[in-house]
Amino acid sequence: MTIEICVSPALYPYYERQNDTVIIVDILRASTTICAMLKNGASAVIPVAGLDEAEAFKQKGYLIGAERNAQKCGFADFGNSPFDYTSERVSGRELVFTTTNGTQAVHAARKAQHLYIGAFSNINALAKKCVNDERIVVLCAGWNNKMNMEDTLFGGAFIEEMQKLREVEMSSDSADIALHLWRTARENPLEYVKKTEHYARLVKNGVENEAAFCLMQNTAAVVPVYHRATNRLTL
Amino acid sequence: MTIEICVSPALYPYYERQNDTVIIVDILRASTTICAMLKNGASAVIPVAGLDEAEAFKQKGYLIGAERNAQKCGFADFGNSPFDYTSERVSGRELVFTTTNGTQAVHAARKAQHLYIGAFSNINALAKKCVNDERIVVLCAGWNNKMNMEDTLFGGAFIEEMQKLREVEMSSDSADIALHLWRTARENPLEYVKKTEHYARLVKNGVENEAAFCLMQNTAAVVPVYHRATNRLTL
Repeated sequence: MTIEICVSPALYPYYERQNDTVIIVDILRASTTICAMLKNGASAVIPVAGLDEAEAFKQKGYLIGAERNAQKCGFADFGNSPFDYTSERVSGRELVFTTTNGTQAVHAARKAQHLYIGAFSNINALAKKCVNDERIVVLCAGWNNKMNMEDTLFGGAFIEEMQKLREVEMSSDSADIALHLWRTARENPLEYVKKTEHYARLVKNGVENEAAFCLMQNTAAVVPVYHRATNRLTL
Repeated sequence: MTIEICVSPALYPYYERQNDTVIIVDILRASTTICAMLKNGASAVIPVAGLDEAEAFKQKGYLIGAERNAQKCGFADFGNSPFDYTSERVSGRELVFTTTNGTQAVHAARKAQHLYIGAFSNINALAKKCVNDERIVVLCAGWNNKMNMEDTLFGGAFIEEMQKLREVEMSSDSADIALHLWRTARENPLEYVKKTEHYARLVKNGVENEAAFCLMQNTAAVVPVYHRATNRLTL
């Protein structure tokens, strides 16, 4: 097995191959939130890239999660907090979801053979799900196509998690870099994330406690799977 | 001052701003080789992206350096080894140069206000040259638009070098990541580079001793400057 870490959706064309497994990662917070939605009983998540599309779904009666630049959009029922999507509110419902970076990354990789959502919250379940795959691309959503700290840390953590289960061929420099970074950060990843641009945005919006939650491992033992034919994420 | 680390030429559009200083980095080996050329007295280096263009210059009597996939091209006078460009061979001459990744990166950033070539070999001279600039983008050539180890290490080393001279605002995650990586690697960067894909290519071509040279600091106290109007790198 090889694991590649693609640090920006804009670089995905250079990593894309047939028959790949792609893991979409947007730790703060979209991929953590999608795991929470499905863990709490939502029947499906419909990722959409644009706000217009989300508003059109709203007219049809769907529950909408919509965030831009760390803030909930006015027309939406939810923002991008994993805490908002409680069982009471989402169980049995289909949710429409659009965020600044995460849902665009799903769109970029929609042709992958297997497309999963990855977060620290489901890292162990995810490694088990992919354990027999040949080539895995961890596609970091980043921030406006720039590399970010938290998604890169996840890349390293995921390699380490997989190495507990089987041999991983380390043939790519970005995988090597992510693993080195994770090894220095693993005792206290929040300290690494606290210095980032994105953390500053969360503080500004008073939701920095979510960052600590988003770095906790195995709080949601589910693997969201993307189905291209229906544009839905389900378990 | 802010320093951004752009890990791939394909991401440069997301970093590009007016009035930037851009440093092109292709440690193994193009940027190290360009520093050696000018240090050894070449009057100018003409970077060209394509082999056709390099061959056309050959017809006009220019000395040509041309490399693809770690190998010297057959029609060329030189490959991409910093050892080949001795004073005896290059002093007073204009050289045409094309490589797999490095010269394309120069092309991508050709509109920058200041465009310099950076390598471990000129790191101190380079930091002094940029010490009063407001925003510096370290543009890593990478490998076929993928992030690589040696250029990212240089990014971290350059931030550290600049921090010896003045305050640097650490506002970007990729800069943070590069600096963390460098701090773990700085005692023996060659150990980090030995595991990379590119090192394997150099070994295959019997030129791995060049990698050690390319990681040595301050062997060439020169800063190659790119002049867009004439498409020339000079001191």
